[in-house]
Amino acid sequence: MLEEASLKTLHHQELLSRFKEVRSRTAAICHPLSTEDHLPQVVFYASPPKWHLAHTTWFFEEMILKPYAHDYREFDSRFSYYFNSYYNSIGKRTKREERGSITRPGVNEVYDYRIHVDNGIEKLCEHPLSDDVLDLLSLGIRHEEQHQELLITDLKVALSCNPSHPVYATDVDYAGGYDSQDDGWKTINEGVYTIGAAAEMKEAFDNEQPAHRVYLYPAALRKSLVRNAEYLAFMEDGGYERPELWLDDGWSWKNDHQVSHPMYWMKQEDDWFRYSLSGLQPVDGNELLCHVSYYEADAFAHWAGYRLPIEAEWEAMAAELEWGKRWEWTGSAYRPYPGFRLPSGPTSEYNGKFMVNQMVLRGASPATAQRHSRITYRNFFHPEMRWQFSGIRLAKDQ
Amino acid sequence: MLEEASLKTLHHQELLSRFKEVRSRTAAICHPLSTEDHLPQVVFYASPPKWHLAHTTWFFEEMILKPYAHDYREFDSRFSYYFNSYYNSIGKRTKREERGSITRPGVNEVYDYRIHVDNGIEKLCEHPLSDDVLDLLSLGIRHEEQHQELLITDLKVALSCNPSHPVYATDVDYAGGYDSQDDGWKTINEGVYTIGAAAEMKEAFDNEQPAHRVYLYPAALRKSLVRNAEYLAFMEDGGYERPELWLDDGWSWKNDHQVSHPMYWMKQEDDWFRYSLSGLQPVDGNELLCHVSYYEADAFAHWAGYRLPIEAEWEAMAAELEWGKRWEWTGSAYRPYPGFRLPSGPTSEYNGKFMVNQMVLRGASPATAQRHSRITYRNFFHPEMRWQFSGIRLAKDQ
Amino acid sequence: MLEEASLKTLHHQELLSRFKEVRSRTAAICHPLSTEDHLPQVVFYASPPKWHLAHTTWFFEEMILKPYAHDYREFDSRFSYYFNSYYNSIGKRTKREERGSITRPGVNEVYDYRIHVDNGIEKLCEHPLSDDVLDLLSLGIRHEEQHQELLITDLKVALSCNPSHPVYATDVDYAGGYDSQDDGWKTINEGVYTIGAAAEMKEAFDNEQPAHRVYLYPAALRKSLVRNAEYLAFMEDGGYERPELWLDDGWSWKNDHQVSHPMYWMKQEDDWFRYSLSGLQPVDGNELLCHVSYYEADAFAHWAGYRLPIEAEWEAMAAELEWGKRWEWTGSAYRPYPGFRLPSGPTSEYNGKFMVNQMVLRGASPATAQRHSRITYRNFFHPEMRWQFSGIRLAKDQ
Amino acid sequence: MLEEASLKTLHHQELLSRFKEVRSRTAAICHPLSTEDHLPQVVFYASPPKWHLAHTTWFFEEMILKPYAHDYREFDSRFSYYFNSYYNSIGKRTKREERGSITRPGVNEVYDYRIHVDNGIEKLCEHPLSDDVLDLLSLGIRHEEQHQELLITDLKVALSCNPSHPVYATDVDYAGGYDSQDDGWKTINEGVYTIGAAAEMKEAFDNEQPAHRVYLYPAALRKSLVRNAEYLAFMEDGGYERPELWLDDGWSWKNDHQVSHPMYWMKQEDDWFRYSLSGLQPVDGNELLCHVSYYEADAFAHWAGYRLPIEAEWEAMAAELEWGKRWEWTGSAYRPYPGFRLPSGPTSEYNGKFMVNQMVLRGASPATAQRHSRITYRNFFHPEMRWQFSGIRLAKDQ
Repeated sequence: MLEEASLKTLHHQELLSRFKEVRSRTAAICHPLSTEDHLPQVVFYASPPKWHLAHTTWFFEEMILKPYAHDYREFDSRFSYYFNSYYNSIGKRTKREERGSITRPGVNEVYDYRIHVDNGIEKLCEHPLSDDVLDLLSLGIRHEEQHQELLITDLKVALSCNPSHPVYATDVDYAGGYDSQDDGWKTINEGVYTIGAAAEMKEAFDNEQPAHRVYLYPAALRKSLVRNAEYLAFMEDGGYERPELWLDDGWSWKNDHQVSHPMYWMKQEDDWFRYSLSGLQPVDGNELLCHVSYYEADAFAHWAGYRLPIEAEWEAMAAELEWGKRWEWTGSAYRPYPGFRLPSGPTSEYNGKFMVNQMVLRGASPATAQRHSRITYRNFFHPEMRWQFSGIRLAKDQ
Repeated sequence: MLEEASLKTLHHQELLSRFKEVRSRTAAICHPLSTEDHLPQVVFYASPPKWHLAHTTWFFEEMILKPYAHDYREFDSRFSYYFNSYYNSIGKRTKREERGSITRPGVNEVYDYRIHVDNGIEKLCEHPLSDDVLDLLSLGIRHEEQHQELLITDLKVALSCNPSHPVYATDVDYAGGYDSQDDGWKTINEGVYTIGAAAEMKEAFDNEQPAHRVYLYPAALRKSLVRNAEYLAFMEDGGYERPELWLDDGWSWKNDHQVSHPMYWMKQEDDWFRYSLSGLQPVDGNELLCHVSYYEADAFAHWAGYRLPIEAEWEAMAAELEWGKRWEWTGSAYRPYPGFRLPSGPTSEYNGKFMVNQMVLRGASPATAQRHSRITYRNFFHPEMRWQFSGIRLAKDQ
Repeated sequence: MLEEASLKTLHHQELLSRFKEVRSRTAAICHPLSTEDHLPQVVFYASPPKWHLAHTTWFFEEMILKPYAHDYREFDSRFSYYFNSYYNSIGKRTKREERGSITRPGVNEVYDYRIHVDNGIEKLCEHPLSDDVLDLLSLGIRHEEQHQELLITDLKVALSCNPSHPVYATDVDYAGGYDSQDDGWKTINEGVYTIGAAAEMKEAFDNEQPAHRVYLYPAALRKSLVRNAEYLAFMEDGGYERPELWLDDGWSWKNDHQVSHPMYWMKQEDDWFRYSLSGLQPVDGNELLCHVSYYEADAFAHWAGYRLPIEAEWEAMAAELEWGKRWEWTGSAYRPYPGFRLPSGPTSEYNGKFMVNQMVLRGASPATAQRHSRITYRNFFHPEMRWQFSGIRLAKDQ
Repeated sequence: MLEEASLKTLHHQELLSRFKEVRSRTAAICHPLSTEDHLPQVVFYASPPKWHLAHTTWFFEEMILKPYAHDYREFDSRFSYYFNSYYNSIGKRTKREERGSITRPGVNEVYDYRIHVDNGIEKLCEHPLSDDVLDLLSLGIRHEEQHQELLITDLKVALSCNPSHPVYATDVDYAGGYDSQDDGWKTINEGVYTIGAAAEMKEAFDNEQPAHRVYLYPAALRKSLVRNAEYLAFMEDGGYERPELWLDDGWSWKNDHQVSHPMYWMKQEDDWFRYSLSGLQPVDGNELLCHVSYYEADAFAHWAGYRLPIEAEWEAMAAELEWGKRWEWTGSAYRPYPGFRLPSGPTSEYNGKFMVNQMVLRGASPATAQRHSRITYRNFFHPEMRWQFSGIRLAKDQ
């Protein structure tokens, strides 16, 4: 018993320290932004930075402070409605596409809100916490870590709408970079494999669980990720004009949106450039491809004579692959694992409700929080989405 | 050698006989329609009957007669363009949503086209056929069998737009009917199972192949399908107003289209009716539910405390279930089987290009051609689609 | 008294004879159409021929037979709803854009409906008619005459959707033709003029009344209408790419719909052709321009250094102009004349409710019923519409 | 000659003084706004305050300083593109609906831009100015005065999107207020009247010219404007549900946008409130109605048994009416006066290109710049627009 109590105290301290670190990193991400940059919602799928700052805070206030901290004074009762994202069961929420219209509270007030809630959590942590609260605190931290990456991708799409190609930071560019360029293949034998997060993995999200067995066939995954030069070869070979390479929904998407190159690319005279967080950069053929949709990834793999990995193949081989520079589109639809159960309580809407029409991405990007970089992690997006730091790994049957 | 030749002749004769039967059934399906009923395209996803009549014919002309019947005289060179459906590699095609605007050729001319091509095929069959031609003939027959069911569902949606609720035939109603109402459960043990069509199954489509092993967990499937009374209980319990029961994309779909009941249902005073091919019918609580989307099926299962089967569970147990009255939504996204290969040649676009954003349905409906009613058959539609004869089977983990 | 009764009888006989002639002409216009051609609604603003056939009949049944012919037996009570066009006060009506989905009643049944109502009117006319009925009969005839021109323009747009460029009749082409090509100008002096239809003009519609005085300034109208060669010069001079020539709403319309030539024109190799009711025809520079929108007419006039006439100028000079080959866009918005009053009763919705956002066209086309070809007639369409037989006359200040 | 030079100097001094006053008032209007409030574009037709601040400045830089001030140093060469509004002939411009996405330059930089240009103009004014420059300076001032009212209406619609109903200023509410409530009628006799701005009226815009004669019929205009209580009676009498009261395009607009009350009104329990610049206010029956569209104004007048005035009637009687509290919808389409000529040069796009699909409003609002409050002034908007301070005056034939 004693030991368990000690472990719990340790966990408590570790969580608080991690809480402070996470909260401070979110603010740091926004540091290069002007007040104005915090505001606009330029596409329906990307939220304003101000909204991320407030919503991650709202999670701690709504899920922990309001139910569990008895002497906590709510910062502003209207925020409960303003900064709810998608938790339909908690009450009314601002329509997603109208988030950019809300100018009040202002940016400074949102930063005050953060401090107020930070103080509330720190004060709460002065006393022993129940397991429920510890679990929620852990979830809130991981929730904010997830939002940090979204915040980065969302502020990039917002900055990109300024015709001046503004520089966020001269030394930050999550969409560039190289790997070893070892184009060899890693193989796997036929058989039953276990994938998914074990029950004791506290960090794992509900959608990574339970660990379970799958039957795999002989396959090989390329060690390196696809590079810009390879993708340019696809483009120059008419990849965007050849219907036989594309999924039917992908072909429609490409035509409807007149897509002919990765997101953020633009041609000036005869040269390709890409908008990055460090401003406009020439497309370097040796750098890793970034900002493609699942449709493009699938068409590229088809053109190259390969296919995309399925997520179980990826997870079974991950320990031996070079990964972490891109979110890698897999050929697996985002569906629950066998035995998956929705969590009970307010966090029941966390992952399960998105399990349709989306594809799984595996790996991580340079913008991913360290602790989310693990081989069981399941990221997911609709197949037309490209504003994440997404790339391509090739696979083939053996 | 002799034996093989004999087998081939037998196959040849059998195919010809099946060809005649299929061709004549398609025309019979359209018999109750007026000339006018053959024409309109009332929703983007349902083609006019005239178009089905012509397109199934086009397949035989374009894939078999033009390349293989050397003395064949093309009926009308423009039809190649008019009645191509989705074969992007074959050339330009009429935009899907504009098929209802084409009044010429007229309905009678399309029937003449059918006879012309029927004669062409019969004449070709007077001589020995290569394996390639036999395979294409078989595919063309199965293609038309698939279109027969689409034709029925498409003409239903077209007739339903007439405010008079027209009767197609007094004795035809594929969306009614009962099963045994045995609500017991059929269970399956954990282990490795083989599903998919064996290579020697000539009837199978590319997407059912190859046969392959999957690892399944203990589960149970309800023997009977969901009945109208059960679905009415969901509706009366506020099923359409409770976000926690719905997938996020489903909740948006429901709101955007103001859906509050299965397709074709309407309330008159206090009673529910449904439009059927035999006209307006009262909703009978004991009849099998029909015309629901995947989103509704998933929400209903959630409400009932169960889930939908995945396709491997369904196939592994199918021999012991009562099925064939409804296309049953599964919880499996439509993706290729391990080792799946696209066919080569003009039929390469047949199935593979649709393998994204769609869910698999298993089973069959009363409108399904007999030979397509098999346990390996994979039907698939986007999750919001409801005009097929779709229903719900419940499943649970054991 | 006696004399007045005689006049009335004469009027009665004349109306009946005109009724028969009009009814028979409508059917004759549809004679070259196949059953199928009667059905589709290919654009929201053009109704199916079947609908015109039925709706003009509905007017006589609903406005005259049902209220005034006591022994009249309604043909089908559902038609009252099906074939109401826009008379909101009479009850529910089929949504305009869904008219093409109604296959039942069929085309033959609609022709039977016509005969049934024709018989009803003829039987009613065997007895003396009240002034109210005579007025409604006259209005019904003129209503059908208006629909005849719409029927012709609507069937043209429907036939044009067939990729085969079908021929309606080899000798019918309302969009071709020449005038004298006298490019001189007719002038008018400053002063007060009277325009509009005098109260005793029974044929006139409510919107042409009352006759009233307007103050005009010195102006000149070109005697001839604009020819294709002149419009080609505008096109070749970059007319569609020069924003300074266009009204702001016109520039948006042009860009949104990618308009770069008159409706029905298409370029094949280096030559311009136009789809006409006699099939595809080369564009003849000397023929009168047809099928342009108000926006195009205004931009052309601007480019040419002139302006469009206002309707009062046109009417004041019409007796001395050559007109009747095209509906001529004027620079006058369609608004009520001073002293205009809405008619009472069911015909109150006839014209007044359209008096916003539309521009007046004066003149007539070769498809206009003889009796509608008069100098006080006010035709009107939204400025982006081009499927009428519309053309351009130039004007200038003196 | 001496005298003329003196007059010019006087004019020069007066313009400079007015320039300073106008520039300072624009900034004062924005004073109560937070940085964030300057940014969003919440509806396509309302521009962000930041954009108004910059665009009015751009006009002086682009039209005067760059061509005429030889030692002027451009503030930022990119602004020429960013802040062009609709002057197609001057070059590329930001798409109107994307103005809210531009966060850089920021708000402070835009205020710096204003000071830079103000200094430029003041320096230019140290020397004698040509007539051309004086005219452009006068136009720039009037242009900014027009934008001041748009700025106010645009910031109101932006603030209204905040669910907190923010207060812009406690003592500012342009949409409230009373008139004398004298519901008597002012009459006019039949005859020829002169309206429009005389050539020597330097303040007048091109669209108010030339002065010209019109023929009017006996009519009467109500002295007072329509009050909220009168409009509530229309609403309670089913005004929004009775199609016979509405123009056809208005009925569609009302249904498509589910309009059932004036803009900014909302019902809480049984009471009506309206959002105003001083926050949420109860609807006071005696206050003047505000924020209605032309369609609503026309339907209301129809319901009341009257009509809207035409602009010539209004102008001919204006001296004897009480006006200036609302922009009054007239029944006149916005078209050029006889003899109207487009200005030459860069200001040619000022007014003429909008002369289609819009209706004229006469009068002024409390937000109108003093000098724009004149009887010849022609304001104009599309008939569905309601975010201006628009109201209703009734008229009738005598």
